[in-house]
Amino acid sequence: MSNGSKLQSGEDSLIARYFKPLATDPGAFGLTDDAAVLKALGKDIVVTTDALVEGVHFLADDPAETIAQKALRVNLSDLAAKGASPAGFVLSLALRQVDEGWLAAFARGLGADATLFNCPLLGGDTVSTPGPLMVSITAFGRVAEGKMVHRNGAKPGDQVVVTGTIGDAALGLDILKQGRVAAALAGDVAAREMLVGRYRVPQPRNPLASAVLAHAHAAMDVSDGLAGDLAKLCAASGVSAVIDLKSVPLSAAVSKALASGAVGMGEIVSGGDDYEILCAVPQGALETFTQSAKAAAVDVSPIGTVIVGESAPKWLDAEGKELPLTRTSYSHF
Amino acid sequence: MSNGSKLQSGEDSLIARYFKPLATDPGAFGLTDDAAVLKALGKDIVVTTDALVEGVHFLADDPAETIAQKALRVNLSDLAAKGASPAGFVLSLALRQVDEGWLAAFARGLGADATLFNCPLLGGDTVSTPGPLMVSITAFGRVAEGKMVHRNGAKPGDQVVVTGTIGDAALGLDILKQGRVAAALAGDVAAREMLVGRYRVPQPRNPLASAVLAHAHAAMDVSDGLAGDLAKLCAASGVSAVIDLKSVPLSAAVSKALASGAVGMGEIVSGGDDYEILCAVPQGALETFTQSAKAAAVDVSPIGTVIVGESAPKWLDAEGKELPLTRTSYSHF
Repeated sequence: MSNGSKLQSGEDSLIARYFKPLATDPGAFGLTDDAAVLKALGKDIVVTTDALVEGVHFLADDPAETIAQKALRVNLSDLAAKGASPAGFVLSLALRQVDEGWLAAFARGLGADATLFNCPLLGGDTVSTPGPLMVSITAFGRVAEGKMVHRNGAKPGDQVVVTGTIGDAALGLDILKQGRVAAALAGDVAAREMLVGRYRVPQPRNPLASAVLAHAHAAMDVSDGLAGDLAKLCAASGVSAVIDLKSVPLSAAVSKALASGAVGMGEIVSGGDDYEILCAVPQGALETFTQSAKAAAVDVSPIGTVIVGESAPKWLDAEGKELPLTRTSYSHF
Repeated sequence: MSNGSKLQSGEDSLIARYFKPLATDPGAFGLTDDAAVLKALGKDIVVTTDALVEGVHFLADDPAETIAQKALRVNLSDLAAKGASPAGFVLSLALRQVDEGWLAAFARGLGADATLFNCPLLGGDTVSTPGPLMVSITAFGRVAEGKMVHRNGAKPGDQVVVTGTIGDAALGLDILKQGRVAAALAGDVAAREMLVGRYRVPQPRNPLASAVLAHAHAAMDVSDGLAGDLAKLCAASGVSAVIDLKSVPLSAAVSKALASGAVGMGEIVSGGDDYEILCAVPQGALETFTQSAKAAAVDVSPIGTVIVGESAPKWLDAEGKELPLTRTSYSHF
């Protein structure tokens, strides 16, 4: 115990080696202090927190890089849906043991995304656990004062718009679990890999945040299943909606699985982990919104219309028949 | 699935029942949105995060109220040491199952402290886990711009000051684990209960935050053991310190355990979970600082002096003999 460096506990040394390089913001103080400073820069700070548990939100043998990416990206997705620009995040990591290779890969994945999304690590806590690995991230964004986009602003006549494609991640998880989709796509390695990739590494739509901020009456990210999340948005807004099932954007891989009969539309619109943005855009702003989305290289699809009412949204097929939904989203309990 | 309320998943319903009453800040939006808004009010936002794991940071049979209190208070303690006023927190809670009685008690403990410390719940995430219960809290404070008190500002000549009493919590844990202290204090129920209480419910020194902000050159909270934490503060500041062991403030219960021979001073100054403030106060400000502490009803004790040097702080007994410390603090790995 003769000098400072030898005093470093294993924990401090871990943090210095793997996470300090990610703490590029001056307010992180190189992770050498007990707290970080976040500057509001005249804006509102938007705060969101999401935790991932091994065996629940990711699989034990998922790559460490993608576990880190998913943990950060599910939070970035919330910021995007609220119209906020990423400002930084804190990480809480519970580990069973120190596996240097795993940690290096985890930090690599996290660092790549912190750079990609301009969202630096501000601080964190690393603890031991006898149980499953857990990664909890609290992320911060900035948005003009009073301008955060809420769930509850949808108005009758608004177009229901969703980004990207729906159902990929849920089918990816089914493949990892050797389910029916794995069998249906047995001969299509590329499709299986795409779907698994969508489960492991969501694509948060942060480039669309400014368009959401400018045009959407209401928005949220789709994390627990499109049908359930739309129902939440409608309930919060005191409205209902009618959705045209054939307008729901599907990847070629999901369309193939659907055609094979391995899954139905109900499972696709109620599967979780999409991390797309669901929003209500007034009819008059739809063209501008779509152009902004194109400029941001984010696909957007109008899938239906907000209507007056308090009933759950209706999902209509090509014949106008309502899709029965027994389970609209994932719930932990 | 006929209306909004029936759509609520178990998770949403849990949040509404137990945690919504704690979300008193307008920026929490009653926990009905995907994110919260934190107003900086012209200040810097101080961010700190600490996670507690069942079996590591608390015991499985600790009361739910005190688990909640500890989870919030360890974060409040960081804010106090940084000179910041509490502004709110987000909660990430991983549960094995829904035990309504447990959750009600947890929310009661959390709510009481959110009110007591003026630190409202802003948001959170409740997830299921097959493993140990885990509570991760990220807390926010406000401090005048650029004024957060750091670890690294201690200067030779500063007085080393610590709040409250040291070692209580570590001995409380020993009692819960039926260790030597439990045997030594077998006949003293009040002492045992006090020590266990200090382990389960730390007393963060938030009333002292403004005095720390006004006077301390450096500060941190004592969470992993006074000796190790002082060594960290000194290393960060590029200084050393000489500590007078007999000035280290001890409760009557700890003094009794020490006198019995069940523990030594080394264990007391390297035990964890004190959650007191350790700070370096310039000699000239000590009297004013002490008066402010008295006004805030927080006991403070000068225990030594910051000196030039890079070696680890020296802990000297009444005869000027150095206490050998083999382990200065708790490390998870």
